[in-house]
Amino acid sequence: MPDTAIPPSYPITPVNRVKRRHDRGAYDHETVHRILDSAMLCHVSYVIDGQPYCTPTLFWREGTHLYWHGSSASRMLRNLDKGQPACLTVTHLDSLVMARCGFNHSADYRSAMCFGHARLVTDIEEKKRALTMMVDRFFPNRTAGLRQSTAQEIKATAVVVMEIEQASAKIRAKGLADDDEDYALPVYAERIPVTTVLGVPEPCDRLLPGVERGEDLKAYQPWRLLEEALRESYAEAYP
Amino acid sequence: MPDTAIPPSYPITPVNRVKRRHDRGAYDHETVHRILDSAMLCHVSYVIDGQPYCTPTLFWREGTHLYWHGSSASRMLRNLDKGQPACLTVTHLDSLVMARCGFNHSADYRSAMCFGHARLVTDIEEKKRALTMMVDRFFPNRTAGLRQSTAQEIKATAVVVMEIEQASAKIRAKGLADDDEDYALPVYAERIPVTTVLGVPEPCDRLLPGVERGEDLKAYQPWRLLEEALRESYAEAYP
Repeated sequence: MPDTAIPPSYPITPVNRVKRRHDRGAYDHETVHRILDSAMLCHVSYVIDGQPYCTPTLFWREGTHLYWHGSSASRMLRNLDKGQPACLTVTHLDSLVMARCGFNHSADYRSAMCFGHARLVTDIEEKKRALTMMVDRFFPNRTAGLRQSTAQEIKATAVVVMEIEQASAKIRAKGLADDDEDYALPVYAERIPVTTVLGVPEPCDRLLPGVERGEDLKAYQPWRLLEEALRESYAEAYP
Repeated sequence: MPDTAIPPSYPITPVNRVKRRHDRGAYDHETVHRILDSAMLCHVSYVIDGQPYCTPTLFWREGTHLYWHGSSASRMLRNLDKGQPACLTVTHLDSLVMARCGFNHSADYRSAMCFGHARLVTDIEEKKRALTMMVDRFFPNRTAGLRQSTAQEIKATAVVVMEIEQASAKIRAKGLADDDEDYALPVYAERIPVTTVLGVPEPCDRLLPGVERGEDLKAYQPWRLLEEALRESYAEAYP
């Protein structure tokens, strides 16, 4: 069997090995990346003076690199060439699971934790490209039709990049799972699906005459799953 | 004016002060707690051997204390009386904002970051009460009708508690906000609402005859916002 038949995976180390419920863990690129590419919001953890921070931010993936919108992390990263250890996590909540005992109450979910060293994107060309993809990864080719960014705007936006050194996915998708003997009990049990959906688009009320919604937003249709629109746009932005 | 007229707030320190876009920041209990009580999923950051972790988990609030389902944090916390510094964050994504330039692309959101020291709940009575509320905070009085937890189950579930020492809320709710001169450009701009909703409940297909859905789940109706059901249940669980 040629090497190429082995699906690429992230290395498993003490840092990213799924310890609790390890039957739910996965490390292959395909599983991890699909969870990432189905989201636009992540939470990033980093440490300043021993204090952990958990910051929500916009992010996207490019190969095995993650980019995100810098916030208070930027100050810490400014003068660090090697980067700071960070952990970027994405979680999709898929259902609530009400079982026949407290212990089996649960939720279906998909999450990915990515570990690496975060650094600020400072090279001006790298940064311009990243700022383009910060829009175009979600709305393919949208930047070309926008008012172009000023030097001041480029300066005011911080972009952080991190190579995924280790990662793990954790998926629970089994719904109700009571203990065998508990099914004989007169207790009501159910699963409730949870989805994150798009609403009806609200066009700006100051649009110029004749200006219409373009192909860049075509994935974003009312009542569609946000994650479907994000995956479809991703596939178009990174064919 | 009596002291009671001053709404309670979390202290503002260099740790929790909102640095970027500080006009979006708030520190009062009401704002922070509402964001927390509208969620069941949070992300917790903590540090092990200098490595930050960002872990998704179920959580709930009781006054100015947060409880969450322990995972790999438990091992670290087991023998630490004073607790470990941690940061628990909740984020609600409310819309996507497509503006006339890249810089003004944004999202409406509500987030709360809470800082404190996490410790494992080890006292058996405190732990039993917490495990009851881990279910009943979401599904009021449900535990009373369930098969009761075994000693082994109680032992196998880790619960972490953290007093909120500092907290901040950050809210963006203004939708489209282009630069004044950009409204004259022939660029399409819109806001798309994003909501997280409940689906149609899927009752267990092994329910005993006559066993029906109870009052504990009444807040969870099809197509309702998850956050509304969570707030309503919270108000009933902690009247």
